Amino acid sequence: MDVYEESSELHERMKGKLAISSKVKINTKEDLSLAYTPGVAEPCRRIAKKPEDIYKYTNKGNLVAVVSDGSAVLGLGNIGGKASMPVMEGKAILFKEFADVDAFPICLDTQDDEEIIRTVKLVAPTFGGINLEDIAAPRCFYIERRLIEELDIPVFHDDQHGTAICVLAGIMNSSKVVGKDIKDLTVVINGVGAAGSAIGRILIDAGVKDVRLVDRNGIINKNVKDTMLNWNHEELAGITNKENRTGNLVEAVKGADVFVGVSKPGLLTQDMVRSMADKSIIFAMANPQPEILPEEAKRAGAAIIGTGRSDFPNQVNNVLVFPGLFRGVLKARVKVITKEMKFAAAKALAGYIPENKLNAENILPSALDKNVAKAVAIAVCEAAK
Amino acid sequence: MDVYEESSELHERMKGKLAISSKVKINTKEDLSLAYTPGVAEPCRRIAKKPEDIYKYTNKGNLVAVVSDGSAVLGLGNIGGKASMPVMEGKAILFKEFADVDAFPICLDTQDDEEIIRTVKLVAPTFGGINLEDIAAPRCFYIERRLIEELDIPVFHDDQHGTAICVLAGIMNSSKVVGKDIKDLTVVINGVGAAGSAIGRILIDAGVKDVRLVDRNGIINKNVKDTMLNWNHEELAGITNKENRTGNLVEAVKGADVFVGVSKPGLLTQDMVRSMADKSIIFAMANPQPEILPEEAKRAGAAIIGTGRSDFPNQVNNVLVFPGLFRGVLKARVKVITKEMKFAAAKALAGYIPENKLNAENILPSALDKNVAKAVAIAVCEAAK
Repeated sequence: MDVYEESSELHERMKGKLAISSKVKINTKEDLSLAYTPGVAEPCRRIAKKPEDIYKYTNKGNLVAVVSDGSAVLGLGNIGGKASMPVMEGKAILFKEFADVDAFPICLDTQDDEEIIRTVKLVAPTFGGINLEDIAAPRCFYIERRLIEELDIPVFHDDQHGTAICVLAGIMNSSKVVGKDIKDLTVVINGVGAAGSAIGRILIDAGVKDVRLVDRNGIINKNVKDTMLNWNHEELAGITNKENRTGNLVEAVKGADVFVGVSKPGLLTQDMVRSMADKSIIFAMANPQPEILPEEAKRAGAAIIGTGRSDFPNQVNNVLVFPGLFRGVLKARVKVITKEMKFAAAKALAGYIPENKLNAENILPSALDKNVAKAVAIAVCEAAK
Repeated sequence: MDVYEESSELHERMKGKLAISSKVKINTKEDLSLAYTPGVAEPCRRIAKKPEDIYKYTNKGNLVAVVSDGSAVLGLGNIGGKASMPVMEGKAILFKEFADVDAFPICLDTQDDEEIIRTVKLVAPTFGGINLEDIAAPRCFYIERRLIEELDIPVFHDDQHGTAICVLAGIMNSSKVVGKDIKDLTVVINGVGAAGSAIGRILIDAGVKDVRLVDRNGIINKNVKDTMLNWNHEELAGITNKENRTGNLVEAVKGADVFVGVSKPGLLTQDMVRSMADKSIIFAMANPQPEILPEEAKRAGAAIIGTGRSDFPNQVNNVLVFPGLFRGVLKARVKVITKEMKFAAAKALAGYIPENKLNAENILPSALDKNVAKAVAIAVCEAAK
């Protein structure tokens, strides 16, 4: 039985992965009168009088909505809100298992931007945060921005920023190992969807020398006709590709220090790796097969290779980020997740591996290490102060 | 410390009453690959191919949304979605504690009918049922009808039907005790909101001889000018008050067999009780004080008195109905909750008390008896077949 069969069998046996539990037992009349009527009227009255008290008397402060329209689910593409439920349930239980954050899947039966925004706003009052998930680019950028502007709770599109924070942490540690300064790096990102765009932005904010974004039409450049497919591309063209290079991936990787792949299996050849700068760093995160296999990249001269897979070293896995990050912003009760908080998360993640344990095969902590979330949460909470 | 202080203290200490729990543990790489990526892709693919399989691979089949706009919360009135959260969390944990149904509060930041309907439809795909709660009349009737028509999962406004089923069960058993046939009863219902309207409808469906509905303007009758405030009243006027009586509550109760109060404390006087038929039955369910206190009603000649309170005999409490009813309809996977299912619930509830235990002080089971939900669930599930 392969992993897919086995997973289906698990899902069927458990009837999903998520359940609701009660923090209070209801066995006596008194229990009922305190947890429900008549006693419950009083916390309601107090919240009605002072809306902030919802954090005091309900679970809002520890409750995250995992919201998806199912338009870009894993490698499956646009399968819709309903079919995305197993992923969203999975995400919700990772929040719980890794950071004791209560999270609930909201899988929407619409892919209309305005309807998604409106619906999230209407269900938001009782949530402490919104985790957007698996919404296709470029719609995800617009939806996230609008919700950040219009809601008073943190909104975070994990496919963008969870991945970006994790990659930044990986590049921070890789730079140390190969003895380069992050400010001197040229980074090529292949794939300009949710993840690629956010990785580009966070690296520029982190002071990386140059970033080259590449999509199916080639390097994103300032020539509108070639690559500016939407406002996201236009915005990125303005801040990346300092030399205004054009061309395809082959041209892009020449002399680059880092390759980040959020694209398709097999797109990076050994020849391309050979054309990169000395001591090159590769994060090949395509699923289920990376852009290049670690052994091939190594043979072509790469110094460090990370992938999205757990069976190779240096797994880039968002679970290293989102549980702790949300734990931190919920604890600090911030309204907006700032760049500083994202950097704090990346630094905490990178710093989690002691200097003396850092090496080419140990750039990122294990995705299963549940103490990572605590370290990230503390750092994010500190940054929020 | 009174019940209100104590309840607030409990809510603050527990930070709300509801939590999310994971049915699967995530400790190993294998756990992660089965509960999340890459394995989770397979149940998603299967649901995308065959939407009905969402019941097979997710929690949908046992998941109810407790939806409110906070427009008519307990006796607190229109306090809004946010402030209604403690009640909705309470409702959700009662589902869990009494019938092992997972329920999640959706407290909406709108009181616009169309927005409520649209939002519920957009979040519905992953729920197995919708429990509407504390939405003001007459809007609640329209919203419920629209959602029943437009969704393919059961929708149930508990303030209407939970109360109605419970009162019907109480009247069934009361009739037995006083030796009257339910088909010969004249019932006066004081209060024509969500509960009063639904009680009126279910009693007529159950074959009760006549129902007189009374609101602040007097008995609902066929004279439009007097009482037809909205289409709900108009519809009710067409099926109640066979003699087309007019007048106030004093006129209404004269000669009636049963008084059902879903109105305000103290509205039923001893003189009114004296004017009722012999062996009168009274369900005085105003909160926190009933329309008449049991001892006063008794002294005025009433044979049976029920209230909404747990410190008097014969408590009418919706928790006797909604957990078992939803358990039953989820189990049978019905799309619409029919009259037959509601009757089945009422009969199961009434029949739960053995004939030899039935007496004027034991008309309904204890709200704390968790076996009631099982009996109701089985009966509803049977009726669904």
